[in-house]
Amino acid sequence: MSKVMLCVPNFSEGRRSEVVEAIVAAIREAANVNVFNVESDPDHNRSVVAMLGAPEALEDAMFAGIQKASELIDMDAHEGEHPRMGATDVVPFIPVRDVAMEDCVETARRLGKRVGETLGIPVYLYEAAASRPERTNLAKVRKGQYEAIKAEIGENPDRAPDFGPSILGKAGATAIGARHHLVAFNVYLDTDDVEIAKKIAITIRESSGGLPYVKAIGLLVGGLAQVSMNLTNVEQTPIHSVVDAIRAEAAKHGVGVSHSELIGVAPQKAFFDAAASYLQLDLDPNQVLETHLMGGTH
Amino acid sequence: MSKVMLCVPNFSEGRRSEVVEAIVAAIREAANVNVFNVESDPDHNRSVVAMLGAPEALEDAMFAGIQKASELIDMDAHEGEHPRMGATDVVPFIPVRDVAMEDCVETARRLGKRVGETLGIPVYLYEAAASRPERTNLAKVRKGQYEAIKAEIGENPDRAPDFGPSILGKAGATAIGARHHLVAFNVYLDTDDVEIAKKIAITIRESSGGLPYVKAIGLLVGGLAQVSMNLTNVEQTPIHSVVDAIRAEAAKHGVGVSHSELIGVAPQKAFFDAAASYLQLDLDPNQVLETHLMGGTH
Repeated sequence: MSKVMLCVPNFSEGRRSEVVEAIVAAIREAANVNVFNVESDPDHNRSVVAMLGAPEALEDAMFAGIQKASELIDMDAHEGEHPRMGATDVVPFIPVRDVAMEDCVETARRLGKRVGETLGIPVYLYEAAASRPERTNLAKVRKGQYEAIKAEIGENPDRAPDFGPSILGKAGATAIGARHHLVAFNVYLDTDDVEIAKKIAITIRESSGGLPYVKAIGLLVGGLAQVSMNLTNVEQTPIHSVVDAIRAEAAKHGVGVSHSELIGVAPQKAFFDAAASYLQLDLDPNQVLETHLMGGTH
Repeated sequence: MSKVMLCVPNFSEGRRSEVVEAIVAAIREAANVNVFNVESDPDHNRSVVAMLGAPEALEDAMFAGIQKASELIDMDAHEGEHPRMGATDVVPFIPVRDVAMEDCVETARRLGKRVGETLGIPVYLYEAAASRPERTNLAKVRKGQYEAIKAEIGENPDRAPDFGPSILGKAGATAIGARHHLVAFNVYLDTDDVEIAKKIAITIRESSGGLPYVKAIGLLVGGLAQVSMNLTNVEQTPIHSVVDAIRAEAAKHGVGVSHSELIGVAPQKAFFDAAASYLQLDLDPNQVLETHLMGGTH
């Protein structure tokens, strides 16, 4: 078994596919990483790239990707719905196999130093890699976006980057950090009454005293009320516990769950945990046949 | 992705650990396979070895294992609770990755031919590899065990082996076949009333008109009534459907499920299926992060 992290950089380009392709090509050429998903959103004018690899390979690949993005994306000309501050906007490292969060923090810091010193791009460390408590929150780091940071970075010490110069070029600034896997999970109710979804969202989300590591809002999607969620730590608050809570709340409103939807990927442990809960089973990972595929054979 | 099968040979030795170790050593030396479990039962006087590998590697490894077992085990001197007919009693090949059942059948036939012709051990093909309908059932192939086969093999055409001579040496005969993964799964009820477990077993098992691919009996284990099962095709009858059925039957008797127990391994899909059912989710395997670990990275 070897060390594997997930890296999910967000680039501020979601319209010019040739630019996104050039960035992904630079990433792939720089190191042996497995880029398994690229999603571009033209409204957000933003692309999300998902890749797996060894820590050093990801560091080299991302350095190349950030460099290529800085050459091809001009933040003075960028507009889109999603908040952003740099050509490479945000680079999170996420533990997957045989690595601790501390390893991801280390990789984030090493990459940040290289990007700041070699490319001259200001870097802010965030979440688990943050150097100041207020920088654990990405929204605070990115407050006011590219334009505000450009105006303030040289004068406001709160805006001083962790690496790189206190001056913003056309590539903007980049947030590099370490965090848990974020699971985007939506539960549809068998009703079109969006007010019920909104009430359930308020009841279950952490910000209003609900379940830890759960962010939730109520929406109307495709004619059904939907509880739309970001689950920021499915080890601590498993997906199935969240679905249980929504089912219980929905029942109070006289409705049920129609179906669920996972956006993107989730770690297999989340599904094993759900299965074990359902089957009332104490499941040892070694009892999953495929665990042994990673062993001595091919 | 490369072809992978599971092979779970049963050897007629569960007491002399040095014999079991020598057989496993021969298997490991012959080819690159991943032996991930060895379980010996002294009462059964039988050992079950579980290994994963490419079809050709498993064939070579098993040929070596069968040869070694034939040298070290004397069926004339063997006794144990479990029915048996050979030093290597039964060798099932099970599809795991990028192989069809037909590939497992082919591997079984190739190995059977080699064992029969080179080692002089009579081989019966069974289950999906069977050459006659009545040989799909291993119990029928093994009827009367070593002693009866020894007496009848030369005279009764129904006993004629698929490969090898119609005469039994001290190594006995070996059944080689192909089948689906067999999941050994037990559900404990929150009662010590074993009659309830027996009634539920009768209701849910295929032989009395219950769920297909389910074999079940009721037992009293550790002070709790237990529905003990072999699930012979969890693609067709998933584990979670069986647990659902037991819960529903248990409720009719005014009891519930205490917990479940998996003996040995089960394919990861069984757990993904259970999770998807619980979460009411249409889960694409590509949404499981670890799926992409098998891709271009390490």
